[in-house]
Amino acid sequence: MLLVGSHSDTQPLGGWLDGAFGVACGLELARAAVEADGPRVAAVSFQDEEGRFGSLTGSAVWSGRVPLAEADRGADHGGVTFGEARGRAAEIAPLGEAPPSLFRAYLEPHIEQGPVLDAAGLSVGVVEAIVGLRQLDLRFEGAANHAGTTPMAMRRDAVRGLGAFMRRLDEAFAPVVTERTVWTLGRIVVEPNTSSIVPGAAIVSVQIRDAETDRLDHLAALAEEAAGSVAAELGLGLRRLAGRALDPVWMDPGWAEALARAAEAVAGGRWRRMPSGALHDASNVAAVLPSAMLFVPSLGGISHNPGEDTRAEDLRLGLEVLARAVAAGVPPEVSDQAQDAR
Amino acid sequence: MLLVGSHSDTQPLGGWLDGAFGVACGLELARAAVEADGPRVAAVSFQDEEGRFGSLTGSAVWSGRVPLAEADRGADHGGVTFGEARGRAAEIAPLGEAPPSLFRAYLEPHIEQGPVLDAAGLSVGVVEAIVGLRQLDLRFEGAANHAGTTPMAMRRDAVRGLGAFMRRLDEAFAPVVTERTVWTLGRIVVEPNTSSIVPGAAIVSVQIRDAETDRLDHLAALAEEAAGSVAAELGLGLRRLAGRALDPVWMDPGWAEALARAAEAVAGGRWRRMPSGALHDASNVAAVLPSAMLFVPSLGGISHNPGEDTRAEDLRLGLEVLARAVAAGVPPEVSDQAQDAR
Repeated sequence: MLLVGSHSDTQPLGGWLDGAFGVACGLELARAAVEADGPRVAAVSFQDEEGRFGSLTGSAVWSGRVPLAEADRGADHGGVTFGEARGRAAEIAPLGEAPPSLFRAYLEPHIEQGPVLDAAGLSVGVVEAIVGLRQLDLRFEGAANHAGTTPMAMRRDAVRGLGAFMRRLDEAFAPVVTERTVWTLGRIVVEPNTSSIVPGAAIVSVQIRDAETDRLDHLAALAEEAAGSVAAELGLGLRRLAGRALDPVWMDPGWAEALARAAEAVAGGRWRRMPSGALHDASNVAAVLPSAMLFVPSLGGISHNPGEDTRAEDLRLGLEVLARAVAAGVPPEVSDQAQDAR
Repeated sequence: MLLVGSHSDTQPLGGWLDGAFGVACGLELARAAVEADGPRVAAVSFQDEEGRFGSLTGSAVWSGRVPLAEADRGADHGGVTFGEARGRAAEIAPLGEAPPSLFRAYLEPHIEQGPVLDAAGLSVGVVEAIVGLRQLDLRFEGAANHAGTTPMAMRRDAVRGLGAFMRRLDEAFAPVVTERTVWTLGRIVVEPNTSSIVPGAAIVSVQIRDAETDRLDHLAALAEEAAGSVAAELGLGLRRLAGRALDPVWMDPGWAEALARAAEAVAGGRWRRMPSGALHDASNVAAVLPSAMLFVPSLGGISHNPGEDTRAEDLRLGLEVLARAVAAGVPPEVSDQAQDAR
């Protein structure tokens, strides 16, 4: 069987499509397969994609990346564990077993959660890869001092270090990034953070996302180098706090090509190939099944927000592309190439 | 009578000299004047200099800058008002009246609370002016977005605005500042301040201190201009939050010259004229009496800290300079010049 779906949980102030669109597509394709008496399709809704208890918890356990016992210990802000929540769900609907070996591939339809398709006036995106990330959390350390009595030349100002770092980072990244690379300095914490004291410390998060592992590693090294040279030049201390590293996950080329051909047939000229900048359950499932993703536009790029929406015709078009790809399967010549490549 | 003193309150984790040195000098000069049967000296300890209830509260009321009824409403973090605290103090020691008209000048000895004298190996500073300040609290407003799915070209990233502003500010200030100008970006608040979200807003405080009003105004205008042009270029909103403006306060030239001559006699070659980068009670008193300040070094520039200290010989030297200036008074030719200038 093919497995089609996503997740049905959302953020506390999320919208109506994030996750739910993929699950609804899975249910409709499963229903249609029965009606047509064709090859069966299974629908899935992975638990806890949004991370109330962990991170992509359901698909992480199902794909074997995280042991169930470990996931069960994950707790929400109120102290409820994933294990307790699972126990209560089982009382309502006893759970059966459905291991990955039952399925031949996983297709995940999802809203883009970004502005690319909407801004370009396109209806469908075929995901080539889910980007990886490197995150550095850097702490520049100077000396907190009176902002009136300490001459500029005698300061060790952590925020001046931050400013110099931001400039150096842009210069170092410019020749290496592509138009699809993104990087974000999303979190800044200054100490003691008051207007009359020269900052003694400044923490900044540098998060880089790209579909190429080599480029991610190169950019992370450039960021560390920029921070190190700025700290040395300004006489600041530099500490690297705990960061994060996730490698990119490439989608199955056969199923991506199946989706691309179906998109060209159903929505000729109104689709593109693209990376996914967000993580999805397919990031986990790709480790155990050939996996592919299809995006429909998010109006204004808005998601995790009650204003999240997609035009009804694009939701329908996305489902039609999926149905056609499911019916046609992986094009034999691509399948053979992939076979040869192995 | 001459009035000599400062304050005796300090910060919760302050040291032993901030304020107290000036009061001790006042008491010693008053005692010595009685012993020598010379012109009387009065000692003063202004209340609430450090701002538990207000800001330089005692000298603000005494000099008429803040009405007593207004000061009495000022409350500390625990809700105790200045009026209540004054009432309790009056039970212990009933208060008399001593209006500024009783005195001919105010001398305030104080530790420098900065590193300039100590780093230069000097023992005494004669204050020419207490610097003024201009403070702008600026808020750059962009759009918070997913840090993975929003391409760089489609972002309105408030932290990128902050970085560009910091660079532009340095460029704009460089030709205008002197080596005594200081400016500090002491407070930065980013929203929502999480590593996976493009920052939607960034607040930064820009505090500029200088002894010249024109230069302060010029620099404040350059900072506003830099923020405005960065916001326009990056498509960000810009709001100016409540700022602050304090004009510089010049010390009495006659009494500054008296201190300078006494310093040259007592500590030849080991003193300098300098601005005060911090506010002091003299900032208020100068409005009603000729006022002057003398600094002794702060070891390592440390103050508002239990490690605050000054070499004993420099404390003694400072007191000797004061005693000599009090005995000699304002040099007649300087007094005449000042008279002519009026």
